Amino acid sequence: MASYGKDKEDLLKRLRRIEGQVRGIQRMVEQDKYCVDILIQISAIRSALDNAGLILLEDHTRGCVAKAIRNGNDEADSAITELTEALKRFVK
Amino acid sequence: MASYGKDKEDLLKRLRRIEGQVRGIQRMVEQDKYCVDILIQISAIRSALDNAGLILLEDHTRGCVAKAIRNGNDEADSAITELTEALKRFVK
Amino acid sequence: MASYGKDKEDLLKRLRRIEGQVRGIQRMVEQDKYCVDILIQISAIRSALDNAGLILLEDHTRGCVAKAIRNGNDEADSAITELTEALKRFVK
Amino acid sequence: MASYGKDKEDLLKRLRRIEGQVRGIQRMVEQDKYCVDILIQISAIRSALDNAGLILLEDHTRGCVAKAIRNGNDEADSAITELTEALKRFVK
Repeated sequence: MASYGKDKEDLLKRLRRIEGQVRGIQRMVEQDKYCVDILIQISAIRSALDNAGLILLEDHTRGCVAKAIRNGNDEADSAITELTEALKRFVK
Repeated sequence: MASYGKDKEDLLKRLRRIEGQVRGIQRMVEQDKYCVDILIQISAIRSALDNAGLILLEDHTRGCVAKAIRNGNDEADSAITELTEALKRFVK
Repeated sequence: MASYGKDKEDLLKRLRRIEGQVRGIQRMVEQDKYCVDILIQISAIRSALDNAGLILLEDHTRGCVAKAIRNGNDEADSAITELTEALKRFVK
Repeated sequence: MASYGKDKEDLLKRLRRIEGQVRGIQRMVEQDKYCVDILIQISAIRSALDNAGLILLEDHTRGCVAKAIRNGNDEADSAITELTEALKRFVK
């Protein structure tokens, strides 16, 4: 089971909703809807993606990273380096 | 025609690719793939969305906002206020 | 006068407050304060900077960009391209 | 010693440079410099702050969070919840 096991259904529900939102924007573009309304929808999807990402980050820290730390220094080091790399992609 | 008329096909292509990426992440979650690999995909979608948003913002400024400015002060004022509100959603 | 003329004093006040916040964080680091408290302060400075940036962006659009648009297509084009480049730095 | 002990001097150097950059922007505003040049400087400070924040986040995880995880489940839980809260401020 992945670290996000307990949130798996919640994550899938969020991702399906995001997929629906992306299809909704495609329709808006096809129908020449007003740019600012589309921009507002894009920001909403970005927030929804960030929220899904944060759930994964939390589960990952609570699961994989915590386990690596308990397994000793070498594993801990590489798990935390990997976590930090993942964080950088989100912050920047 | 909307301000993004000339980029309509490009935008639709980008949004369809984003939809495919979101479906790809759903599969990764269903198959209990490694959290960090999913996080990297989420960051990639965020970038792709930002790029689509920036195309819309540029087209909107070049189209609707420029037209409002040419139409005189009152229209210009409300168009720029609206643009700034849209920017805030992207920056924050 | 720059496009941000009417907000000049407000911007300077904000920037002086940000300078004070940055010095406050230096003291926290010198005194080995708790990492999370420092991180919270860093996020606060980031928000304050974003707000200053948004004021500048709005003033710039209302001032320089609007003027360029009124001056005709060539000037408008390069002003909007430049604005979009500035936006990209903020969004990414 | 704080979790960021080994990076303390590096962090202080970064924060002093950021303080100098903020003062530089104040001068630019006082001298009515071009808005876009100021915006570019603001983006540069934001990046510099993000980098300082990422160093703190990494040190915090490697130090405080790892220690809490080694100390058992209760402490681990609250340390990871706190870390996630700090992350949210950075991502959003």
